[in-house]
Amino acid sequence: MISKNEIKRIRGLHLKKGRKEAQQYIIEGEKSVREALSSNIEMVSVYVLDHAAQDLLKEGILISEKEMKQLSALSTHSPALAVMKMKSTSADYDEMSNQKVLVLDGIRDPGNLGTIIRTADWFGISSVLLSSDCVDLYNPKALQATMGSFINVDVLQGELTEMIDQLKMKNPSLRVFGAVLNGADAKVINGSQSAGVLIIGSESHGISASVQQRCSDLITIAGKGKAESLNASIAAAVLMSYWTES
Amino acid sequence: MISKNEIKRIRGLHLKKGRKEAQQYIIEGEKSVREALSSNIEMVSVYVLDHAAQDLLKEGILISEKEMKQLSALSTHSPALAVMKMKSTSADYDEMSNQKVLVLDGIRDPGNLGTIIRTADWFGISSVLLSSDCVDLYNPKALQATMGSFINVDVLQGELTEMIDQLKMKNPSLRVFGAVLNGADAKVINGSQSAGVLIIGSESHGISASVQQRCSDLITIAGKGKAESLNASIAAAVLMSYWTES
Repeated sequence: MISKNEIKRIRGLHLKKGRKEAQQYIIEGEKSVREALSSNIEMVSVYVLDHAAQDLLKEGILISEKEMKQLSALSTHSPALAVMKMKSTSADYDEMSNQKVLVLDGIRDPGNLGTIIRTADWFGISSVLLSSDCVDLYNPKALQATMGSFINVDVLQGELTEMIDQLKMKNPSLRVFGAVLNGADAKVINGSQSAGVLIIGSESHGISASVQQRCSDLITIAGKGKAESLNASIAAAVLMSYWTES
Repeated sequence: MISKNEIKRIRGLHLKKGRKEAQQYIIEGEKSVREALSSNIEMVSVYVLDHAAQDLLKEGILISEKEMKQLSALSTHSPALAVMKMKSTSADYDEMSNQKVLVLDGIRDPGNLGTIIRTADWFGISSVLLSSDCVDLYNPKALQATMGSFINVDVLQGELTEMIDQLKMKNPSLRVFGAVLNGADAKVINGSQSAGVLIIGSESHGISASVQQRCSDLITIAGKGKAESLNASIAAAVLMSYWTES
């Protein structure tokens, strides 16, 4: 059972504005909910359908299919949904300036954002910076596409130029690689030092001018065929694989 | 203007069965239609809205928004749509056995299939084999995700084991790389010979047993983080980038 008011409140989290005001967000799917429950993220409430897995049934409030459909932000609802509190992540530039940091500029497609976060997690990159005009991490489709990796990766959204300047101030020798369509062969990034910044722009608009000015190296994935460009999540994956080569 | 019968006929191409019977398919979007028209694919008919680009207006039959909406297989229709004839591609195993051939086993998501075809095109891989249970290339969402690359890449769908056996018969020293979750470091594939086979399975089911038996090398992309797997289109992209390294 769930009250009408509660349904209304949770549906408010479908929107960026609602999430920002409440500092809460929704995660959906048995696997994601289970991972979130065993993480250090603070949980507000969990809702389950009667055919949810046993461990989730124990944790959650039983609701009807109709109610779950109302709560869900996805076209296909699943047997478990959790409302979580946003982590208050403050930027630790000292630490980040000694790590590999992935920067995303203008990625608006939630599926792409989620896939990139998940791929970053695979390659052991644990800090991701998003420009203000990127889709937010807590968008339900983005979260779903991370397949739980949003738990392992610290994601900060804000003014990219300021964040990059902070990193460069802390570590003046930091290399800043920007992916463009006519740069140097991306292999220069191969297994490069332990710290650095890799910037991926949107496929249609690339990296914005003010951010590109802060790059030390403009790089391009060598192609041999006729395709004009690569999807942003594909380009990010190939570059991260080069970058983290040992 | 377009007749009701014609609308009905074209809507039949939304389904795999209809496409197979008519040996025709739909492509949508100004860029894709333009590329198809300048390719050697045989065109059946082109339909345009009055705000389509000048060059397409000249080629196409003017129809209304309402009619375009009926023809379109996508949630958002665009100003141009073309009906094309399928190429009758017969497998040239002699030629393929001397090339890099990408094999997809059980890829059911049309977006993933299209993205993989497009990435293959980027890396200059021009032959792709699909298992019978892959989504078909002419699925409207798959075609759209190729961003026109379906024109540059030869795609064959059929019984994978038979197709791989044919290739191995023509070229007995052919290496057949299969992407799995616990194989050797994928770097063994780096810039390997000019001919070879790379097999990608679906994320949830992997490569089917009978296909895996035909692999000479089982490989895995080295990961450092906590993500359990990679999206199939991401894994395919990273492996193709290693494979075509010069």
